[in-house]
Amino acid sequence: MLYYTPSVARLIEELAKLPGIGPRTAQRLAFHLLNQPKERAMALAQAIVDAREKVGYCSICCNLTDEDPCQICSDIKRDRSIICVVEEPKDVIAMEKTREYRGLYHVLQGAISPMDGVGPDDLKIRELLQRINEEVEEVVLATNPNVNGEATALYLAKILKPLGVKVTRLAHGIPVGGDIEFADEATLARAFLGRREI
Amino acid sequence: MLYYTPSVARLIEELAKLPGIGPRTAQRLAFHLLNQPKERAMALAQAIVDAREKVGYCSICCNLTDEDPCQICSDIKRDRSIICVVEEPKDVIAMEKTREYRGLYHVLQGAISPMDGVGPDDLKIRELLQRINEEVEEVVLATNPNVNGEATALYLAKILKPLGVKVTRLAHGIPVGGDIEFADEATLARAFLGRREI
Repeated sequence: MLYYTPSVARLIEELAKLPGIGPRTAQRLAFHLLNQPKERAMALAQAIVDAREKVGYCSICCNLTDEDPCQICSDIKRDRSIICVVEEPKDVIAMEKTREYRGLYHVLQGAISPMDGVGPDDLKIRELLQRINEEVEEVVLATNPNVNGEATALYLAKILKPLGVKVTRLAHGIPVGGDIEFADEATLARAFLGRREI
Repeated sequence: MLYYTPSVARLIEELAKLPGIGPRTAQRLAFHLLNQPKERAMALAQAIVDAREKVGYCSICCNLTDEDPCQICSDIKRDRSIICVVEEPKDVIAMEKTREYRGLYHVLQGAISPMDGVGPDDLKIRELLQRINEEVEEVVLATNPNVNGEATALYLAKILKPLGVKVTRLAHGIPVGGDIEFADEATLARAFLGRREI
């Protein structure tokens, strides 16, 4: 019995390693890539290589970026008196889409999760504390409204308040137990406007 | 408003061009590739490049292959008196999985489809006719049991029979209107065993 020629078999195998992509979908994607004009398939390969080679973390806000500091941190039109703390880069995009927020960000790269062995030292908390100076008036804690996100927010509030900075949390316009990433823009905007001090 | 850093935006954009991958899934796949060890992401990029650079069509059976002639055409243990004609490379795999068939293949690379402007000259039919010699006793037409596949089978039967070769069609064990690719192995095996002359 013979299966695919080695290159095709390997392509299907690699595609099937992606999350949510089963063997059947991987086969369909592989044939799609083989049937496309060569440049189209190569553009995807190059995009993967570029993303892995060019993208790093901003030395200020720890968000993904091609240049250091990132576009937001180096944007002089941004309000430097407020920092919005999020778990992941995709949460920055979600906040940006509301068009309500014009301050800076800090990406923790996760949330405190004792179950997964993720403690405060595994997050970009030290980097956040280094950013707190007299210029910063408010820190908005925009971690997800679930157990890990709430725990992270409480932990951060406890260590940030003694530094004399106003600490707020996004209002519960966002559904409890949900992900910031999946909130619609209007809800997320209302959550930002209704933020409260904790 | 700012979205993803350029490399990440381009990766998401390229992934979203794949069939069945929407922007949300593309974003999830992109972050997966960024969070993976670099080698894993590079392995996928390399698999795409290799598949596009190494894979070509067998000069005999027109199947996808890394080497010409392909592994099946150059396998001396294969029965050279019978050629199974299929539409696509994935149909070869489906036939191989039945473990019933030990002959050769011919991949048409499509089916006659007037609606899509695909005529006999757009398929690998000339290449098939060149293979019909005294060694070949039977041609099994294993095109899909739908309108285009049936039209292709009838067309091929009409031009193959005058060449003095036995022409058969897979039995209707396969559901009418379906795809060979999605038939289960037992059904496909029965369809092969019950093939009839047309």
